[in-house]
Amino acid sequence: MTGAVEGPRRIVLDCDPGHDDAVAIILALGDPAIELLGITTVGGNQTVDKVTRNAQSVLVMCGREDVPVHAGASRPLLRAVEVAEDIHGESGLDGVDLPEPTVPVAPGHGVQFIIDTVLAAEPGTVTLVATGPLTNLALAARLEPRIVERVREVVIMGGGYHEGNWTAVAEFNIWVDPEAAAIVVDEAWPLTMVGLDLTHQALATAEVEDRIAALDTDLSRFFVGLMAFFRQTYREHQGFPDPPVHDACAVAYLIDPDVVATRPAPLAVELRGEHTTGMTVADFRRPAPGDCRHRVATKLDHARFWELVTRAIGRLSGGGGEG
Amino acid sequence: MTGAVEGPRRIVLDCDPGHDDAVAIILALGDPAIELLGITTVGGNQTVDKVTRNAQSVLVMCGREDVPVHAGASRPLLRAVEVAEDIHGESGLDGVDLPEPTVPVAPGHGVQFIIDTVLAAEPGTVTLVATGPLTNLALAARLEPRIVERVREVVIMGGGYHEGNWTAVAEFNIWVDPEAAAIVVDEAWPLTMVGLDLTHQALATAEVEDRIAALDTDLSRFFVGLMAFFRQTYREHQGFPDPPVHDACAVAYLIDPDVVATRPAPLAVELRGEHTTGMTVADFRRPAPGDCRHRVATKLDHARFWELVTRAIGRLSGGGGEG
Amino acid sequence: MTGAVEGPRRIVLDCDPGHDDAVAIILALGDPAIELLGITTVGGNQTVDKVTRNAQSVLVMCGREDVPVHAGASRPLLRAVEVAEDIHGESGLDGVDLPEPTVPVAPGHGVQFIIDTVLAAEPGTVTLVATGPLTNLALAARLEPRIVERVREVVIMGGGYHEGNWTAVAEFNIWVDPEAAAIVVDEAWPLTMVGLDLTHQALATAEVEDRIAALDTDLSRFFVGLMAFFRQTYREHQGFPDPPVHDACAVAYLIDPDVVATRPAPLAVELRGEHTTGMTVADFRRPAPGDCRHRVATKLDHARFWELVTRAIGRLSGGGGEG
Amino acid sequence: MTGAVEGPRRIVLDCDPGHDDAVAIILALGDPAIELLGITTVGGNQTVDKVTRNAQSVLVMCGREDVPVHAGASRPLLRAVEVAEDIHGESGLDGVDLPEPTVPVAPGHGVQFIIDTVLAAEPGTVTLVATGPLTNLALAARLEPRIVERVREVVIMGGGYHEGNWTAVAEFNIWVDPEAAAIVVDEAWPLTMVGLDLTHQALATAEVEDRIAALDTDLSRFFVGLMAFFRQTYREHQGFPDPPVHDACAVAYLIDPDVVATRPAPLAVELRGEHTTGMTVADFRRPAPGDCRHRVATKLDHARFWELVTRAIGRLSGGGGEG
Repeated sequence: MTGAVEGPRRIVLDCDPGHDDAVAIILALGDPAIELLGITTVGGNQTVDKVTRNAQSVLVMCGREDVPVHAGASRPLLRAVEVAEDIHGESGLDGVDLPEPTVPVAPGHGVQFIIDTVLAAEPGTVTLVATGPLTNLALAARLEPRIVERVREVVIMGGGYHEGNWTAVAEFNIWVDPEAAAIVVDEAWPLTMVGLDLTHQALATAEVEDRIAALDTDLSRFFVGLMAFFRQTYREHQGFPDPPVHDACAVAYLIDPDVVATRPAPLAVELRGEHTTGMTVADFRRPAPGDCRHRVATKLDHARFWELVTRAIGRLSGGGGEG
Repeated sequence: MTGAVEGPRRIVLDCDPGHDDAVAIILALGDPAIELLGITTVGGNQTVDKVTRNAQSVLVMCGREDVPVHAGASRPLLRAVEVAEDIHGESGLDGVDLPEPTVPVAPGHGVQFIIDTVLAAEPGTVTLVATGPLTNLALAARLEPRIVERVREVVIMGGGYHEGNWTAVAEFNIWVDPEAAAIVVDEAWPLTMVGLDLTHQALATAEVEDRIAALDTDLSRFFVGLMAFFRQTYREHQGFPDPPVHDACAVAYLIDPDVVATRPAPLAVELRGEHTTGMTVADFRRPAPGDCRHRVATKLDHARFWELVTRAIGRLSGGGGEG
Repeated sequence: MTGAVEGPRRIVLDCDPGHDDAVAIILALGDPAIELLGITTVGGNQTVDKVTRNAQSVLVMCGREDVPVHAGASRPLLRAVEVAEDIHGESGLDGVDLPEPTVPVAPGHGVQFIIDTVLAAEPGTVTLVATGPLTNLALAARLEPRIVERVREVVIMGGGYHEGNWTAVAEFNIWVDPEAAAIVVDEAWPLTMVGLDLTHQALATAEVEDRIAALDTDLSRFFVGLMAFFRQTYREHQGFPDPPVHDACAVAYLIDPDVVATRPAPLAVELRGEHTTGMTVADFRRPAPGDCRHRVATKLDHARFWELVTRAIGRLSGGGGEG
Repeated sequence: MTGAVEGPRRIVLDCDPGHDDAVAIILALGDPAIELLGITTVGGNQTVDKVTRNAQSVLVMCGREDVPVHAGASRPLLRAVEVAEDIHGESGLDGVDLPEPTVPVAPGHGVQFIIDTVLAAEPGTVTLVATGPLTNLALAARLEPRIVERVREVVIMGGGYHEGNWTAVAEFNIWVDPEAAAIVVDEAWPLTMVGLDLTHQALATAEVEDRIAALDTDLSRFFVGLMAFFRQTYREHQGFPDPPVHDACAVAYLIDPDVVATRPAPLAVELRGEHTTGMTVADFRRPAPGDCRHRVATKLDHARFWELVTRAIGRLSGGGGEG
C-alpha cells in the first residue's frame, strides 16, 4: 500500500447485483470520493448473465453507461453453482422495472479487465471492491500474480467473524466459493473484510426510505422499489425487520473510514469443516501482530452511512439518471 | 428432564483439576444447593494420574474425603494426549502445597461410576457436570445408552460460541477430545454449555481475592495460592489481567440460574475443520426451535458469583477443612 | 506378544452375524486349533439385538450353547447406525430357520467381557477376532488401556487395501464405524487385516456347496440355506457370481497361516475424506519397517480354506449340532 | 468428442520438465502420429521459470524451436509450492548440459494459449496432454468454460488407482495441486488418466538404454544422460531399480492405444482426507456406466512403448537435433 493517493479512490467493483450491490454501485457513482473504473460481474446472487444485465440496468438508472461492465466467472472454482433466488428473486433484482441497456457488455473477461486495469495503473492506486463470491479475484491473482503487490487494497463484503447467514457461521458470498475466498484472503495484499457483523447494522429502515423517497426522482423510486422487495424476502427468509444493505457498506468504508470502524485481526477461510465450511475465522485472542494484513469491520455509523447513500442518490438524480 | 426435584441438586462432577476445577469442587461442596455424589477424573489439564491426585487433595482441604474419587479416561478417544502445563503447571495444581490424601482412589472406573450412579438413582435426578475433556461422558453414553434418558441434565464447562482459547475458535476441553464432545453434544439429553463467552467474565480480581483472603483460613489461603499462580500463567500465556475461574461457573449455574444467564441455541462440534476443529458451533440466526436441547451461557452476574464462592469457602473453612 | 503358546489358539470372536459371521463361528467351533472363549456382538450387519440372537441360534445349530454370548455396542462411536439389510436380510441371517436359544444372553456388556477375559488370562494368550464394526474393541481399548499390551493379536475382517464394497474404497465394517477402526488400527497391538482383497477370493462356489451339502446333516443344510440367500443378494447388490464368505477367512488365518498369506504394511484409517472415508490405507511404497505392527492378507488358498470349513461342519455335525 | 479426425493427433502439451517430460516432448515431436501445437509449462517438478527454460532446451535438442513455449501458472490454486528436487535435481533436468534457447518464451500466458488454441480450432480436434500439476488446465476451464466441450480429449499423466508415490496413495502431480486436479477430473470432457499403475511399468532398463545409446547421436546421448541421473534418484528416493518414464506414456497412448491399455472407471480426486488427499479414487466395483467420461490406463506394452521412443529419438536425431 503506497501511502496517500490524491483525488478520489479509484476502484474496480466486482459484484453480483443483487439489491444491495445495486446500492453499492449507486453509492460508488454518486459520491465524489470514488472513481469507478469499471464493473466486473460474477455468478452469485443470480447467474452471471442475469447479474451482468442487472449491473447494466443500474448504470442506465444512474445515467452512467460510460462505465464498462465486464462479465466474469459463471461458476465457483470447485463447488456447484448456488444462487440466492429466495432473497433477490428470479432476476436477481426483483421489485423494479429494469431499463434496457443501450451499451453492450464490454469485451474481455472480467478477470482480464481486473488484471489489465491493475497493471496499467500506478502501483498502489487501484482498490478492488468485491461484493459477490470471490471467484474473479482469485482467478486474477492466480493468472497474474504481479497484481497482488500492485493493488492498493482489497475490500470485500463477505464473511463475518461472529455472524452467519447461509449457515450458522458462513455468509453467502464466502459459502458459494470458499476456495476462491481462501485464495483472496491468503494473498499478500491488504484486505478489509466488511462482514455480516457490520452489514447487519446497515438496515434500510422505514425512516431511511422515507427520506430517500422524498427526493422524488426516478432513482429514488428505483431504490424504494428495490428495498420493498428486499424487505419482504429478508423478513420471510432471514427474520429481519428491515433489509441490511450489505454491499454498500464496503463502498462507504472507502469514502469515509469513520463510517465503518475496523480493527486488525488475522483471518482464515475454513474449507473443510462439516459445520463451518465457508466461515471466515478471525483470531481476536491477542492484539493483532504489527504486520497483520487483515482488518475486519466492527461498527457502522448508521446515520452517516445513510446520509452518504441519500446524498449519492440525490446527486445522481440531478444528473442524467432522471432523463 | 423430569420436572422439579426436591432438595439439593445431585451431581457427579467429572473434572481434571486444574485450578478452576478446584474452585468448582469447593463450590460444589460448600454450597447447600448441591449434593456431590462423587468425583470422576479425566486426563486434561494434566495426566489423569495427576488430576486424580489433585482431586483427592482438594477433598482433604475441604475435609470431605468421604466423597469418592474415581479415576477415568487417561486419553482422548482419537487424538493424542495434550495437557495444559503452561497454564496449570507440572502438577496441574501448582502454586500451593497439596496435602496427602488419606483415603485411596475409589475402585471402579470413572465411566462405570457414572453409569452405576445414574442407573441406581431415580430417573431425572442426577446431573452430570463436566469441567474437563468429555471422554468419560462419551464413553458412558456409548457403553450404556440407557443413561441418556435418565440423566436430568448435562452441564459442561467447555467450548464457546464466539470465543476460543486453544485456537481462535476452540476452547481447550473441546479441543483435547472433540470426538467425545461431539458424542456428548449430539446425545438426546438436555445440555447446557457454560463456555468461554461466560467464563471469561468470571475473573478473580484483586478485590475478589482480598475478600476471600480476609476469611483467613487454610482453605482461603489455598484459594489465594491457587489464584496467584493462575493469574501469572494467564497473564503470560493468555494475556488476561486476572484469571477466569471457568469451571466454578458450571456449578454456580446449578446453584442459581440467575447467576449464569443462558439462552437456547442448537449446538454442534466441528471435527474436521482446518481452522475450526473443536469449535462449538451455535446457531443464533433464528429463535431456537421449541425442542432445542441445548442452552448456552451468555452473561455472568460477577458479584453474585463470587459471593457464592466466598460463602462456600467460608462454610467449608468452618468445618473440617481447617483441621 | 509373548512367544509361542501351546495348544489351541484362544480367541474372543467379536461379530455381527451375518451369513459369513455364522460360518466364522462354525469354523471356530469346529476346528480343534481354535478355542472359542466367548462371543461378543456388535450392531453391524443388523441391529445388535438381532445379531446377538443370531449368534445364539448358530450356537444352537452347533450344539455349543455353552459358549457365552455377550451383547455389545448398539451403535457406532460417532456415526449413525447403518445396517446391511440388502445383503443379510431383515433378520441378519435370512434364508434359514433360526432355532430358539435355550440359554440366555450372558450378563455383562461385551466390552467388559473382552476386558475381563484379557486381564484374567496370561499375557499374550488371548487373540481378538473381530468380524464386524470395531466399536467394541475400540471401547475396550479406551476403557482399559492395559489390555492392549496383553492381547496376543488382533485379527479383523474388514477394510481392504485396493478393494471396497460400501464405497469405491471402503469396506462395510470400517465404513460403519471408522473412528472405532482408527482407534483399533492405531493401537500398539499386533494387528492383521483380512480385508476384501483376500476375502473376495473366498467364494462359496457351487462345487464347494455340493461338497458340504453331501455331508447331509442339519448343519450342512443350514450352511447351504445361508449360502443360497447370500448368493442371491451378492448377485443382485454386488455383482458377484458366488458369495464371498469374508469372516471365516479371519478364523482360517489363525488355524493355518498358510491358507491366508499376509505381508507387513503400515495401515491407517481415513476419517475425513469426501471420497475415501472408511478406507484402510496401506503403504506399499517401501518394504515395511521392521517394527511394523500391521499385516494385510493378500492371497487365499481357496481349496484348503474350504477344506477347513467343510471339515469343521463335518466335525460339528457329528456332535450335538444335529440332535 | 466429434468423431474420427484425419491426420496426426493435434495436441497441446502442458508439462513441467522434468526428465520424463523431456522424453514426452521428444516422443511427441519425433512421432508422425502427433502434431505438437505448442507447449505450456506449469510449476511442478521445479519452479515454472526453470521448467519453462527446460522445455526450451529440449526443443533446441530436437531442432524444433519453432514450437512455441508459453509459461503458465507459477503456483497451485490453493496449496503452497512444492517441487520434486530430490528426483529431478536443482535445474529440474539435472544430468545433462542444457543448451541455450535461441528463441524467446512465447508471449501470452499458457492458460490463454490453451484457450485460444482450442477456440481457434475445429471443435473436437485438439487434445490436451498434461504431464504436470493440473493448474493450467483448471484455470483454462474456469476462465473459458466453452473449451470444455470443444476439446477432443484430456490425457493426464498423474494419479494412480492403486499406487502412490508422494504419499501411500497420492501421486506427485495430483498431490501438488489437488484442487486443480479435481476441477479437471470433474469437468465434462473425456479424460484418460495414465497413472502410476501404468507408468511404473515404463522402466528405462539397461537394455532399453543400450538400444538408444546405440543410435549414437546428440539426442540419444542426451536421453542417456537424463536417464543416468533419473535412475540414481529413483533408486535413492523411491527404491526403484530403473526409472519409470511416466510422462511419455501419456503421449504413447495417443500414438497407439494398443501400447497403453485402458478401461473405463468413474474417477474422483480426494481433497480432504488426512491420509488420502490427492488420491485419484477409481470405482471398479461395477462395470462403468455407459456414459462414463473417464478411462484409466492399466497395462503397458513395454517393448512397443520403448520402440516408439527409440524410433522418435532416431527420427529427430536424423534432423536438426544433432547440429
